[in-house]
Amino acid sequence: MTELWLIGIGTGNPDHVTLEGQKALRDAATVLIPRKGAGKEDLAHLRLDILAASKTQARVVYVDMPERDDSLPYQTRVALWHDEIARRWQVALETVPEGPVALLVWGDPGLYDSTLRIAARLDPAPKLRVVPGITALQALTAAHAIPFNTVNGAVTVTTGRRLRDHGWPEGAETVIVMLDGACSFQSLDPTGLHIWWGAFLGMADQALDSGALAEAGPRIVERRAHARARHGWIMDTYLLRRDA
Amino acid sequence: MTELWLIGIGTGNPDHVTLEGQKALRDAATVLIPRKGAGKEDLAHLRLDILAASKTQARVVYVDMPERDDSLPYQTRVALWHDEIARRWQVALETVPEGPVALLVWGDPGLYDSTLRIAARLDPAPKLRVVPGITALQALTAAHAIPFNTVNGAVTVTTGRRLRDHGWPEGAETVIVMLDGACSFQSLDPTGLHIWWGAFLGMADQALDSGALAEAGPRIVERRAHARARHGWIMDTYLLRRDA
Repeated sequence: MTELWLIGIGTGNPDHVTLEGQKALRDAATVLIPRKGAGKEDLAHLRLDILAASKTQARVVYVDMPERDDSLPYQTRVALWHDEIARRWQVALETVPEGPVALLVWGDPGLYDSTLRIAARLDPAPKLRVVPGITALQALTAAHAIPFNTVNGAVTVTTGRRLRDHGWPEGAETVIVMLDGACSFQSLDPTGLHIWWGAFLGMADQALDSGALAEAGPRIVERRAHARARHGWIMDTYLLRRDA
Repeated sequence: MTELWLIGIGTGNPDHVTLEGQKALRDAATVLIPRKGAGKEDLAHLRLDILAASKTQARVVYVDMPERDDSLPYQTRVALWHDEIARRWQVALETVPEGPVALLVWGDPGLYDSTLRIAARLDPAPKLRVVPGITALQALTAAHAIPFNTVNGAVTVTTGRRLRDHGWPEGAETVIVMLDGACSFQSLDPTGLHIWWGAFLGMADQALDSGALAEAGPRIVERRAHARARHGWIMDTYLLRRDA
């Protein structure tokens, strides 16, 4: 049975890697690296830096990533895309040398990442090992030096899509928004809300902003658009909290 | 101005420490270690192991922790306890050599931890740096090799106390429960709920269980009681998900 190790590597700061992650990379026989289309490879060198720092001797195998069919409804599009990625992994796994196969996962393999769902499609099922990694959520609260939660408070972690479709989660005090390509906080009534935003968290270009949503919101929309135009892509996340 | 570094060190597996955390420990001039009463020092050796592994030359300064006054209402009790811890830190900080002062924080300094709130009470305010660490939440989902969220799903992170007082969070699909000393899932109607539980996550004694809440719940209550009696203490957390 193939051993498949999903290794969380943090949000782009190579020093987010844990000692466990580094050891796992060193103990792996093969590392699978997804290869995206031209112009989407900005983070590829970071993966290679992390591999080099781990001093792994593993063989690196590249797997070309399929495109998503944006004409399909969201859940169908994601499901078919995962099916196709799993098929390509399967092909790659048939040719690798014996021993554990590692996949480097941005953030943590459990948090808003599809690697576990793709791995569940493999047949025969591999033996899975998950190595936790620093998430954008933690990189955000660390960069702002703020707590995730209030004393005994609850936090809702959600997506930009859900915030747009369903509004402020019923009864929530703190909301963290992941996977938001559209500054979905603009759909909320900003009264009494505070935002802490971060882009390129942990990286050299890390950008932070915070303040009352009514004032900071429009500023963040603008900063995000500029940063995205300059880099060609952006990864960002934010925490919203109701004033006590 | 004193520089105070809050360093997340994970859930008890010394290999949860990140490269950033290890470097920060090495660069610190002083490490403050809280000292609890007799019989509560089981994890003290883990902190010292982590310090040794980092090869830090920092001076270690112990700070005796006050007791909480359990006769007071919850929020008052916590606030007064934090005031008193801050006062003791303040005294310790006045005697330390120049240079950054590090505090090792279990899990992540942002997530259900009071260190940031205690630091906010210091006067003069120190310059804060937060180094993110692996949380129990990630150690739990990694140990079970499950995703934190469903595709585009929201997750509520809450406390045992809130779950008992307020029941299942309105509209929630996935709930992670932290700081639960009382198996508060027993207060829920188990119909349609699945639980993934973990204790001593990341440690040699890690215990895991999962299943339909109606069946796994009573088993977990029993396992938890046994494990707690054997160790004298327990740290555990769990994820609940509604069946699709």
